[in-house]
Amino acid sequence: MADRGRQLKLGAFLMTPGHHVAAWRYPDTTASEVLKFKFYKKLAQTAERGKFDLLFLADGYAVSETYPEAVAQTVTVRPEPITLLSALSSVTEHVGLVATVSTTYNEPFHVARKFASLDHLSDGRAAWNVVTSGNPAEAQNFNKDHHLLHSLRYERAEEFLNVVTGLWNSWEDDAFVYDKENATFADRSKLHTLHHKGEWFSVRGPLNVARPVQGHPVIVQAGASEPGKELAARTAEVIFTAWQTLEEAQAFYADVKGRLGQYGRSPGELVIMPGVFPIIGRTEAEAAEKKALLEQLIPQEAGVSLLSNLISFDLSAYPVDGPLPDLPHLDQINGGKSRFTLLKDLAERESLTIRQLYQRIAGARGHREIIGTPVQIADQLEEWFVHGAADGFNIMPPYLPGGLEDFVDLVVPELQKRGLFRTAYKGTTLRENLGLKRPPHPAAAQLAPLT
Amino acid sequence: MADRGRQLKLGAFLMTPGHHVAAWRYPDTTASEVLKFKFYKKLAQTAERGKFDLLFLADGYAVSETYPEAVAQTVTVRPEPITLLSALSSVTEHVGLVATVSTTYNEPFHVARKFASLDHLSDGRAAWNVVTSGNPAEAQNFNKDHHLLHSLRYERAEEFLNVVTGLWNSWEDDAFVYDKENATFADRSKLHTLHHKGEWFSVRGPLNVARPVQGHPVIVQAGASEPGKELAARTAEVIFTAWQTLEEAQAFYADVKGRLGQYGRSPGELVIMPGVFPIIGRTEAEAAEKKALLEQLIPQEAGVSLLSNLISFDLSAYPVDGPLPDLPHLDQINGGKSRFTLLKDLAERESLTIRQLYQRIAGARGHREIIGTPVQIADQLEEWFVHGAADGFNIMPPYLPGGLEDFVDLVVPELQKRGLFRTAYKGTTLRENLGLKRPPHPAAAQLAPLT
Repeated sequence: MADRGRQLKLGAFLMTPGHHVAAWRYPDTTASEVLKFKFYKKLAQTAERGKFDLLFLADGYAVSETYPEAVAQTVTVRPEPITLLSALSSVTEHVGLVATVSTTYNEPFHVARKFASLDHLSDGRAAWNVVTSGNPAEAQNFNKDHHLLHSLRYERAEEFLNVVTGLWNSWEDDAFVYDKENATFADRSKLHTLHHKGEWFSVRGPLNVARPVQGHPVIVQAGASEPGKELAARTAEVIFTAWQTLEEAQAFYADVKGRLGQYGRSPGELVIMPGVFPIIGRTEAEAAEKKALLEQLIPQEAGVSLLSNLISFDLSAYPVDGPLPDLPHLDQINGGKSRFTLLKDLAERESLTIRQLYQRIAGARGHREIIGTPVQIADQLEEWFVHGAADGFNIMPPYLPGGLEDFVDLVVPELQKRGLFRTAYKGTTLRENLGLKRPPHPAAAQLAPLT
Repeated sequence: MADRGRQLKLGAFLMTPGHHVAAWRYPDTTASEVLKFKFYKKLAQTAERGKFDLLFLADGYAVSETYPEAVAQTVTVRPEPITLLSALSSVTEHVGLVATVSTTYNEPFHVARKFASLDHLSDGRAAWNVVTSGNPAEAQNFNKDHHLLHSLRYERAEEFLNVVTGLWNSWEDDAFVYDKENATFADRSKLHTLHHKGEWFSVRGPLNVARPVQGHPVIVQAGASEPGKELAARTAEVIFTAWQTLEEAQAFYADVKGRLGQYGRSPGELVIMPGVFPIIGRTEAEAAEKKALLEQLIPQEAGVSLLSNLISFDLSAYPVDGPLPDLPHLDQINGGKSRFTLLKDLAERESLTIRQLYQRIAGARGHREIIGTPVQIADQLEEWFVHGAADGFNIMPPYLPGGLEDFVDLVVPELQKRGLFRTAYKGTTLRENLGLKRPPHPAAAQLAPLT
């Protein structure tokens, strides 16, 4: 390894009962457990057995009914992430808890408070995956006819993040003194009222939760559009991102790490974790069989629907064995812009039909798919890690619990053997395990000696 | 007992580190654990050991800075209730989980989803205490200059509840079929899209969580004003309420139970649980000593501040050893109207000074205070229970964990000996333990045979 001793970070991205759109039909999965706590408890404890840095939960605020058949053919119901991760916090000890929460349909006070609470209750393991939402159906569940424009979502997100961070700093770390004798629970001089008045929010503060154990819960982002990269360079501590090729991933890695300096940050302050969808077999043949079975299980309408949602363009009227139609210009897309570009380029590069394209993305959804034996999987992870494309990976098991168990039992030992991954947790907080420093309170930072 | 076999219901109202405003100074409490999970885990498991029906958590969305000294002298930071109860759901098995969430500063989609999630994850133990918020400082944390008027808050609350209930009914109970062979996860004919468009909310639906285990999480309310009582008669399944005397409690009980018929409901469909603040001693002298110590520990500013907040009127400029000043008419009060009336009447009835009044309410906050030996405490609970004033009680321990442990170890056995309280959980859901029926899905109700 170029950087001796550098180890990769691993996230367990738990889309239940698996990332593949047909996962629930896979023989190994019990689709009926998708709202049962015992199912998630087993997954969380498996990830912790594998020394994963974090559990990662995506989220959305709607059942999309655009493609009616897909409603019947896919899993549309899952627990809300903060509720679930809070429940999991008390049956795990080490693994980080990353909940996706949108800045477009929430209030900063509630978001600051829930993550601060989870961070206290989990002794410093909370992280927030900041998203701006990309599904127009969500707007209609929140008193709106239309989805907010992409550029406005990012403006709102930036102010939202500032407010949340400000609220987390309401109290200095040592504000609570618990002095029974002198009737002083809190030192009022260490209370900072925010008084925020901005374009999107007016929030007085202070927060009615103490400063989080980690200072701030870890900030995760996934946007790869231009405003997404700028926001990430300024504020993100982990980036979850989707790339198909080493070259693309390297370019993104260099681009975003290169932007950090402008904001007074060093490259080590941001952990870049591309998504990886692994199909693991004890032999190459077994892996290929698993992949073939998953593809065969995709109902056509569910496949077209998934693809249409990912590119924010309705493909249901086009022949499934024909090419992609002429798509709108990127400027017209008000969903995930980077995903749109990635899939359009992939279809053009490999001349894929609609069916071939949805089969390709029905598991990884545009993320990197790797397939093979544990050694081959480890090789592919190592390649990106040592060649400047990743600091770690967000693992997207095709089906659960089997896909995660295979990774933990077969791939993790191989990574450990190569010295690429920890054999025991070293830190007590998520921030420590990720190698991220704890942000000092602004008041303490001002007082720090100039050395 | 008049109604042979009827047993009372018990809630553990966990205001940490105790309900008394000086609880954190009490020798028995560890004030520094107010954000630590292990503290709450111990409390929850103690309540479950005592066969309590439910844990009850209040909530608010601000640190009130109206009385600066009180900020230093009181506990202003606690975990957010849904986060905390979710964490507790996985270390308990039987006890109900009641979270307070305001309809004034939330979105129905999020509230429906979080309670549905908690109900699934806890196997049917979730309940929602519906409040409309009473503290003007909260408005300023949610982009508003002023607190919404009392009457408008209740209009909004009613529509909010309708939307949440509608979202819980998005899917019929048997909508999910998990048919791998035929690629049918859900039966689309059992999906009901809400399409709500009202005065306050426009929410399309459906909810992306299955119908809750309990049909609906149990609905709890606390309002005792005229609109509060009407809303409760129409929609509440548990009422948490505050009365000082048997006569008042009986009148309220008869009033609200009498309103149920108008909405096609029977008296058994609503459980009335007044709050009770118990000071328990092994002897009368020990109980009296505890009470005297608690009173002595109240910092004056904290006492005046608490009282001012409860009556929504600033008393800080008035002599603390003088009477209450002339208070505004009830119509001018935009906080908790029933609490205002209760405290004003109490002060007049007993000619209390401001100090005497805050000492009286510094623990119970207007709820009934009972003091004495376990037998005396049980006598006082039994009196209200058998004389048509209560179906059970929400117990408000003065300090924690000791106040709850004393109740469980000393009072519960006395109630059990009298046949007034269960010795084992009988139901598996909160609804079953409370004797409340599971609401059928409206579609199933329509199909029910007319017998």
